[in-house]
Amino acid sequence: MKLSLVIVILATWTPCSIAHGWAAEPLPSWNDGPSKDAIVQFVQRVTRKGDSDFVPPSERIAVFDNDGTLWAEQPMYCQLAFALDHAKALAPLRLEWKGKQTFQAVLEGDLETVLAGGKHAVFEVVVASHAGNTTAEFAQIVKDWLAKARHPTTGRAYTEMVYQPMLELLDYLRANDFKTYITSGGGVEFMRAWAEEIYGIPPEQVIGSSIKTKFELRGGKPVIVRLPEIDFINDQEGKPVAIHKFIGRRPLAAFGNSDGDLPMLQWTAAGDGPRFCLYIHHTDAEREWAYDRGSHIGKLDKGLAAAREHGWTVVDMQRDWNVIFPPQQR
Amino acid sequence: MKLSLVIVILATWTPCSIAHGWAAEPLPSWNDGPSKDAIVQFVQRVTRKGDSDFVPPSERIAVFDNDGTLWAEQPMYCQLAFALDHAKALAPLRLEWKGKQTFQAVLEGDLETVLAGGKHAVFEVVVASHAGNTTAEFAQIVKDWLAKARHPTTGRAYTEMVYQPMLELLDYLRANDFKTYITSGGGVEFMRAWAEEIYGIPPEQVIGSSIKTKFELRGGKPVIVRLPEIDFINDQEGKPVAIHKFIGRRPLAAFGNSDGDLPMLQWTAAGDGPRFCLYIHHTDAEREWAYDRGSHIGKLDKGLAAAREHGWTVVDMQRDWNVIFPPQQR
Repeated sequence: MKLSLVIVILATWTPCSIAHGWAAEPLPSWNDGPSKDAIVQFVQRVTRKGDSDFVPPSERIAVFDNDGTLWAEQPMYCQLAFALDHAKALAPLRLEWKGKQTFQAVLEGDLETVLAGGKHAVFEVVVASHAGNTTAEFAQIVKDWLAKARHPTTGRAYTEMVYQPMLELLDYLRANDFKTYITSGGGVEFMRAWAEEIYGIPPEQVIGSSIKTKFELRGGKPVIVRLPEIDFINDQEGKPVAIHKFIGRRPLAAFGNSDGDLPMLQWTAAGDGPRFCLYIHHTDAEREWAYDRGSHIGKLDKGLAAAREHGWTVVDMQRDWNVIFPPQQR
Repeated sequence: MKLSLVIVILATWTPCSIAHGWAAEPLPSWNDGPSKDAIVQFVQRVTRKGDSDFVPPSERIAVFDNDGTLWAEQPMYCQLAFALDHAKALAPLRLEWKGKQTFQAVLEGDLETVLAGGKHAVFEVVVASHAGNTTAEFAQIVKDWLAKARHPTTGRAYTEMVYQPMLELLDYLRANDFKTYITSGGGVEFMRAWAEEIYGIPPEQVIGSSIKTKFELRGGKPVIVRLPEIDFINDQEGKPVAIHKFIGRRPLAAFGNSDGDLPMLQWTAAGDGPRFCLYIHHTDAEREWAYDRGSHIGKLDKGLAAAREHGWTVVDMQRDWNVIFPPQQR
């Protein structure tokens, strides 16, 4: 083997594409068609050295909504199921909840009454059930719950209700030196407890809603305690604000599925040079769920209009994905 | 060249150590002695595969205070100099400041009166001078100012008032797969405007104090506007809270120079397994400044006691650094 050949190997050797094994065909769960083409063409365009649209790796930031974009959000957000279960477990210990209608309903498993209380009641349950412990304790509670909880209609673990095509997309982008972020309305500490294992997204790349926390020394040992007070709601206009706050630069690509993601996509699209915005449209009532304009969860109305107006990619789940969920593990 | 040799090259080829040129001797601006030894020994300990103290790269998080730790903070924080200069430039346009004593003093360059107003007055000037524009505009204002501003005693650009030994330390840690973060009381958007160029620290790894921002569409174009309202003060107990919020895992190593960094060092040190905490002690009145317990800026009192108690590394600038600032560039 000649030295020149060695140099060629060193220059062209891309460990990631070999490790992921899809150098030949990326995104196998995506059917050939306009959505897959748009993704691949965009990635090639910004990663081809010498191309006028080339973007240096440090600026390849991709942001993903979570609920309905990376995993299923029907018939109820996973985190709400967690909050209800955990609040029920906590209720006997939280004497201050006694007599309060919402918490009484939680204790009795009366979901209808909880939901009838509207956003305010649901919020109250989520905040109350998520506070009062240290950050380390909370992460363990989430992990323990996820290990046992099962999705109400499929009976699968929630962590198996992730979209296989999106797992492949995350891998594909990372292999092309994108930094992949979650920017979700869900609780940041709820997601961080499992996002690295399930999505390969480390805690520092998970942005979400948060409650306030406090540092204190307990018997000389430092702990961070979770307080029953909202810090930030990462939804709608909050998403670009949080992206700017946590990442400090504009994403190159943004992926969402609801009107709550629209400001994030607008912010992304308005950057100079090439940008990529994609909406997932839930169109597959048989293999997943079909919903958009009329849905309370993951309502997609203005977003569809904006996508049409700006030429963003809209994934038709039924048409574009040959697999929805990964194979069952147990 | 034989194939086996090629494989050896591929297996041992570490681009970073070659690029940085200190494969033979890391940290050249650090004198041999206990501080340098402690750093090198810690890094070797957590990066040696098979060692019981080995830490996977994804968990190698190192956090650095900025003022007084990565660059000089005497005789006045750089950002305060910026705030005063910028407020002075803004004053004629901000009619609402007219007649207010603090802003009148700013306009007249009367620093004494501003400082006599105490923390509150200084804060008022910083917030007022930092708000009211878009995030993109503000970043440009900072860059323009830094290009022209000069340090009051050395006459050098502020970006040349960085510590050469700390630049080498950042490089050394990154070459060993550490992710290096700034966690400073300074304004996050002030630092992000230059941290990548000067320290090699990208915006998403800069954590600081912040004011609130708001997303809005201006004539259909999305902007993020900076509001005159404090969002978060990243000092004292705020530092571990922000580390948890932005990074979501406990650092492996923490570097500071004042009591304001103590909770961050305590939080770091309290983690399981090997941790590294280091204080920089300003002991060199000739080449830099000498200050600790009695200083209003960068007061170091409780931190020194904690370092002694817990066996943390304390850098004696005079003894440990053979160079303080990088060579003059212009």
